[in-house]
Amino acid sequence: MRTIQVKTESAKYPVVVGSGLLSTLWRRLPKRNSIFVLTSPEIWALWSKYFLASFPKGNQPAVLFLPAGEQYKRLTYIEQLASQLASHHADRSSLLVAFGGGIIGDIGGFLAAIYMRGIDYIQIPSTLLAQVDSSVGGKTGANLASGKNLIGSFHHPLSVFADIDLLRTLPDRELRAGLFESLKAGVIRDARLFRFMERNAETILKRGNKALEYVISASIRMKADVVGIDEKESGLRMILNFGHTVGHAIEAAMHYRKLLHGEAVAWGMLAALQLGRMRGTISTTNANRVERTILDYGPLPHFKTTAQRLLDAASRDKKNRAGVRRFVLPQEIGNASVIENVTDTELIAAIDWMLSKVKES
Amino acid sequence: MRTIQVKTESAKYPVVVGSGLLSTLWRRLPKRNSIFVLTSPEIWALWSKYFLASFPKGNQPAVLFLPAGEQYKRLTYIEQLASQLASHHADRSSLLVAFGGGIIGDIGGFLAAIYMRGIDYIQIPSTLLAQVDSSVGGKTGANLASGKNLIGSFHHPLSVFADIDLLRTLPDRELRAGLFESLKAGVIRDARLFRFMERNAETILKRGNKALEYVISASIRMKADVVGIDEKESGLRMILNFGHTVGHAIEAAMHYRKLLHGEAVAWGMLAALQLGRMRGTISTTNANRVERTILDYGPLPHFKTTAQRLLDAASRDKKNRAGVRRFVLPQEIGNASVIENVTDTELIAAIDWMLSKVKES
Repeated sequence: MRTIQVKTESAKYPVVVGSGLLSTLWRRLPKRNSIFVLTSPEIWALWSKYFLASFPKGNQPAVLFLPAGEQYKRLTYIEQLASQLASHHADRSSLLVAFGGGIIGDIGGFLAAIYMRGIDYIQIPSTLLAQVDSSVGGKTGANLASGKNLIGSFHHPLSVFADIDLLRTLPDRELRAGLFESLKAGVIRDARLFRFMERNAETILKRGNKALEYVISASIRMKADVVGIDEKESGLRMILNFGHTVGHAIEAAMHYRKLLHGEAVAWGMLAALQLGRMRGTISTTNANRVERTILDYGPLPHFKTTAQRLLDAASRDKKNRAGVRRFVLPQEIGNASVIENVTDTELIAAIDWMLSKVKES
Repeated sequence: MRTIQVKTESAKYPVVVGSGLLSTLWRRLPKRNSIFVLTSPEIWALWSKYFLASFPKGNQPAVLFLPAGEQYKRLTYIEQLASQLASHHADRSSLLVAFGGGIIGDIGGFLAAIYMRGIDYIQIPSTLLAQVDSSVGGKTGANLASGKNLIGSFHHPLSVFADIDLLRTLPDRELRAGLFESLKAGVIRDARLFRFMERNAETILKRGNKALEYVISASIRMKADVVGIDEKESGLRMILNFGHTVGHAIEAAMHYRKLLHGEAVAWGMLAALQLGRMRGTISTTNANRVERTILDYGPLPHFKTTAQRLLDAASRDKKNRAGVRRFVLPQEIGNASVIENVTDTELIAAIDWMLSKVKES
């Protein structure tokens, strides 16, 4: 078991990584009169027995459900969930536990952020992606029809429990998708993590407990470190978007279907690597190493679109400010920088190169 | 012109009270590439010429509309407005100006709080109630079907411009409703303001400019003072809810129809006064003075309900924590305290007394 302390300007909380956290949950929670769990029917069917095991009789939490799927990450479902909280007499001293993947975490966090202008919540991420990425940093939110995460707020949990046991029931494809975010962590800020993932792909993909615990906690430590320095994304935090400019564009162009977030980011990282090659911010040798490692964690799914369509989608990216497009380039391995002067031509060239890889896939 | 500085833990901003603010707006705003105005069709029809007068050609703001009425203070309209912002390419550097009454202010503030996880905004309240109450304190929000303001967040504006000229087109009944909040300010924390309002009801109701400027700025100063000490309502800020426990209950029981917020609060203050009489926290003489002054700013509208129904609604008040009902009692004039041990029987008695006054009205 490892504990990483997240410290930002506005909050301080622990992320606990390890086995057996779920089945001992009750004593890890703050004592509250009313506890609510937001989860998906699938996760609850698999894990409710373990979740409830440590709760005393007469202190069982109320359970709210959100079906799985990006289409449920909308304000209309938030409103339904808030109405359920209200009808169960949840008040400002109630506690919400978000138990599920990234969408449950985002929606749960946002629900906690806006219900009665803010109640406390706990994250128990059930996917690798949610454990290494969305459960740290306080970003919560929902989608608009016109774009992902265009609505939301910053609201930190009281604590996060990343239970590795939960990954036992995670589909293989989702495991791989999450590992791409860990790879990203290595490439932009932790060369040791990158090398570990480069050398131990097989063990990690076979879900070796020790290997996973290291990968997960190193990824979380990297993110906690960055968010601690720049909570509101005015500077450093932008590097977390390595692979995300094109990744988000792919997701938007595919209407959030076909690709998992991590997979789109993996393609986006390949495009960003190519831009790094073109700009000379990363040597060909290192770029090839990263590219090979990304593909080792594949396969990456095929998709069909044009460079122009991705460019258009990238121009609507919410990371842009006052019309300036910001882009994260790798600086060799273990470092990255944010630039603002990427031209459309350069971006098209990098995307075209990536699309040629997509065709081969 | 008077400027009150609001200083809280999380923000610092000026509230400017005076004439001619709207027609000189442009130079008072921070320079931004894109400015959006959220307003109601009615306010815009009356005041758009003045609003736009100071904007240079080619720098006109984009205008978003929300119809007037409590039924539009819902997440579904927030989502529509956010989509409009997105389709106009609003980004994190955009500025939103909320120009209208309390609902426009609450929805505009909440929209600014959650669009792309937070953008800057300015308040230009067009009603007296919004000027003295909802534009200070950072509370933003929307209603659920089951209750008012059950959804929201704390998000402070960059500045507030309370232009007294705007009150020229305010219907008489709305002026009176707003003045009840000013009376509240006097009763709970500013004996001088109370005495001024007690003695000058006629001048104030005739909208004397100087009298209004004093009443508005004193009310804002009182609220700024309280919010500066206790931004998140863990203690002192609760006193602002004087008259609101029963007031909210009346509004809920009437489904937010028939009574204006300030009118419901006026009835609620009469109930709280009666509880103060019963508990002996205010002398009969002073209680009668306050009661008479409240009625001087009437007439208060009649409504029909039962004490039990109001008690039930009050039990669902979101100010309650862990089942404890908190209630604000007047301590003579100019002071108030929050108590947690009001029994149902006491509350029923105070409400019954108030309902007898309603019958006479």
